[in-house]
Amino acid sequence: MNIKLSIAFDGTNYHGWQRQQNAITVEETLLSAISKLMPCDHLTGCSRTDAGVHANGFVVNLKTETRIPYDKIPIAVNTLLPNDIRVLNAEPVAESFHARFDAKSKTYYYRVFTRTVNDPFLCGYSYHFPYKLDCDKMTAAADIIKGKHDFRAFMATGSSHKTTVRTVNFLNITQTEHMLTISINADAFLYNMVRIITGTLLYTAIGKLSVDEVADLFVTLDRRAAGITVPPQGLFLDTVYY
Amino acid sequence: MNIKLSIAFDGTNYHGWQRQQNAITVEETLLSAISKLMPCDHLTGCSRTDAGVHANGFVVNLKTETRIPYDKIPIAVNTLLPNDIRVLNAEPVAESFHARFDAKSKTYYYRVFTRTVNDPFLCGYSYHFPYKLDCDKMTAAADIIKGKHDFRAFMATGSSHKTTVRTVNFLNITQTEHMLTISINADAFLYNMVRIITGTLLYTAIGKLSVDEVADLFVTLDRRAAGITVPPQGLFLDTVYY
Repeated sequence: MNIKLSIAFDGTNYHGWQRQQNAITVEETLLSAISKLMPCDHLTGCSRTDAGVHANGFVVNLKTETRIPYDKIPIAVNTLLPNDIRVLNAEPVAESFHARFDAKSKTYYYRVFTRTVNDPFLCGYSYHFPYKLDCDKMTAAADIIKGKHDFRAFMATGSSHKTTVRTVNFLNITQTEHMLTISINADAFLYNMVRIITGTLLYTAIGKLSVDEVADLFVTLDRRAAGITVPPQGLFLDTVYY
Repeated sequence: MNIKLSIAFDGTNYHGWQRQQNAITVEETLLSAISKLMPCDHLTGCSRTDAGVHANGFVVNLKTETRIPYDKIPIAVNTLLPNDIRVLNAEPVAESFHARFDAKSKTYYYRVFTRTVNDPFLCGYSYHFPYKLDCDKMTAAADIIKGKHDFRAFMATGSSHKTTVRTVNFLNITQTEHMLTISINADAFLYNMVRIITGTLLYTAIGKLSVDEVADLFVTLDRRAAGITVPPQGLFLDTVYY
């Protein structure tokens, strides 16, 4: 049987999803809990999230055999997990289902806290950027980034992908008094793409980049001309669509 | 000069406000930062919060001499503090001002998360109580608790106060899909009073106590007949009024 799990995790204490030596990851923590309940030696995750990145709806699939009813699996696994990882749902899927390759699109959001003084409850869950932001310019830059492009300028230097063309289906900026939230849905993401898009939008918002310079990034494809890679703790993998 | 500070802190990593041996507290952490900037060997806090309790608007006063302008004090102190404590505001007050004795009332709130599966982002900031709650009964019990009474039944056994009569000015229950928030303002609080009132309201909500039995608590004054002391991580000191 092939089981699909939806999980949420606070990434603060983990070195990302993927198993690695000498660092605790979400994958190994979850695998350790599941393998106490059913035979399982491998989990397939929907993406490799970086250290410190959070998730509301990360998707995993696993091949196993168990008599535990699907609706009891979250409760059973959660009792064996630390509080910062929770299984939200378990359901049967076709044997061929693959959490990563079958994803049609994913939505991430990135949170930027703009109050002069940081908030002790948000510092691990947003990026503190206490500057005056020009929202019109940021929105104009976001409109340019939307759509199908070669996003090589928005990829961490040194990473490799078969193609660097991606389609950003939506890129929305919402703002409350002190919190800016950038939501982005794309068919797939290059390494650090959301964090570099956010850094580029913030650079536009403080006048370090013009809207025309953002448009040029799709011509020059030059990573160095884009904004900074904002830190991981503001990033949330929200929803994966299949 | 006498300076009044408003601070916010995430209490997760602290053994409460008050200095003690062999445990890190908010007071000693803040005092250590402040004393690098100005002569200061004592802070007066508005209350003794317990280990794990959070604060949005804890108030402190300190006697010192400094040439740092008041509006620069938060920034200066914050650079010396860990991220989970932030000074929000600093202002001059009369020499006689005392953060604890001059408080006219305080508002706390307590958060209860009721979804079947806990949330990894809320587990340190709410009490997980995934049961069906009878809100009408809880509201009826809250109406009985409001007002001026002898709250001895709502005080941790073994604590001592000159008088156990307190006035609860408001006690409001608000609810979103999965989060119940109990806000309470009183002239002063007995030890663990908010946590025992919350535990008593939850017991009423699940039928372990009747509304009449809650009323009886003000007659018998028997701590054992009230609800449990709910855990500290759901409690926030919100506002202190002078």
